[in-house]
Amino acid sequence: MERQTLMKPIGVINSPFNDLEKMPIQPKGAAGVLGKIVVDEEYVDGLSDLSGFSHIYLIYNFHQCQKINLKVIPFMDVVERGIFATRSPARPNHIGLSVVKLLEVKENIVTVEGIDVLNGTPLLDIKPYVARFDQVISPVDGWVTAVSEKDVAGKRSDRRFL
Amino acid sequence: MERQTLMKPIGVINSPFNDLEKMPIQPKGAAGVLGKIVVDEEYVDGLSDLSGFSHIYLIYNFHQCQKINLKVIPFMDVVERGIFATRSPARPNHIGLSVVKLLEVKENIVTVEGIDVLNGTPLLDIKPYVARFDQVISPVDGWVTAVSEKDVAGKRSDRRFL
Repeated sequence: MERQTLMKPIGVINSPFNDLEKMPIQPKGAAGVLGKIVVDEEYVDGLSDLSGFSHIYLIYNFHQCQKINLKVIPFMDVVERGIFATRSPARPNHIGLSVVKLLEVKENIVTVEGIDVLNGTPLLDIKPYVARFDQVISPVDGWVTAVSEKDVAGKRSDRRFL
Repeated sequence: MERQTLMKPIGVINSPFNDLEKMPIQPKGAAGVLGKIVVDEEYVDGLSDLSGFSHIYLIYNFHQCQKINLKVIPFMDVVERGIFATRSPARPNHIGLSVVKLLEVKENIVTVEGIDVLNGTPLLDIKPYVARFDQVISPVDGWVTAVSEKDVAGKRSDRRFL
């Protein structure tokens, strides 16, 4: 089962963050930060009906991260964790996922709030956040449970995963 | 910005569904359905610490869907919607996303509940569901708001997106 898949970006995410240094590492740390997604013109019809949703998933490529580490020290922790138990970019396939607030869809431009990605990030997919599918009852947050509220909102990235 | 990315599966998702006909289309429709994910041996170290989380995201390839439709009639609706306002497989890059309940991590085998994918689906990534990052306050579900509770849990797929 070594089937590889070629993914082609459907657009680009523009954000105020041109450098990993000091970038918020989760949407919760990026309250009020606006992002502007430019979807390639050829896909504009696919954005119909999206504006009815309050939140969307962005699936993107951690394009500045080339390496793969199976164990990492996450920004919010001080000990090593398995990469699949973190949201770190240094993962196989370098796929990123963020849930953001949808503000506006105008032609091929999608404006969102709570953006936590680098300016110029290649976008692979947009999906609606559907509470009736996605909302989790009584989740348990593993090692993140021990992270302080201050760190969840306030921690910033650095260049460790470049 | 035409940088393409080559993605290599990190494992395979085994489910009871060998055919799209009658498969649940969301985890909410697959309550009690167990899936067994076989992660490639080379990535086993990346699974450390995952078992502390109650829920995980699976990101996978809709491998049986080759086509791309920018407008689709979703399984739960009767009118056309933009593909990015749906979770349909016929999307650019054919990336699937499910939030499932994590039951067990044992070496390279991850057992989950609420699986809504075809047997043999190539897995691209596992991420922890972290309520403190991902939980959405007061979501609005767009066109899905009008879908009945019965259809959210009970609708099954068919072969329309093959």
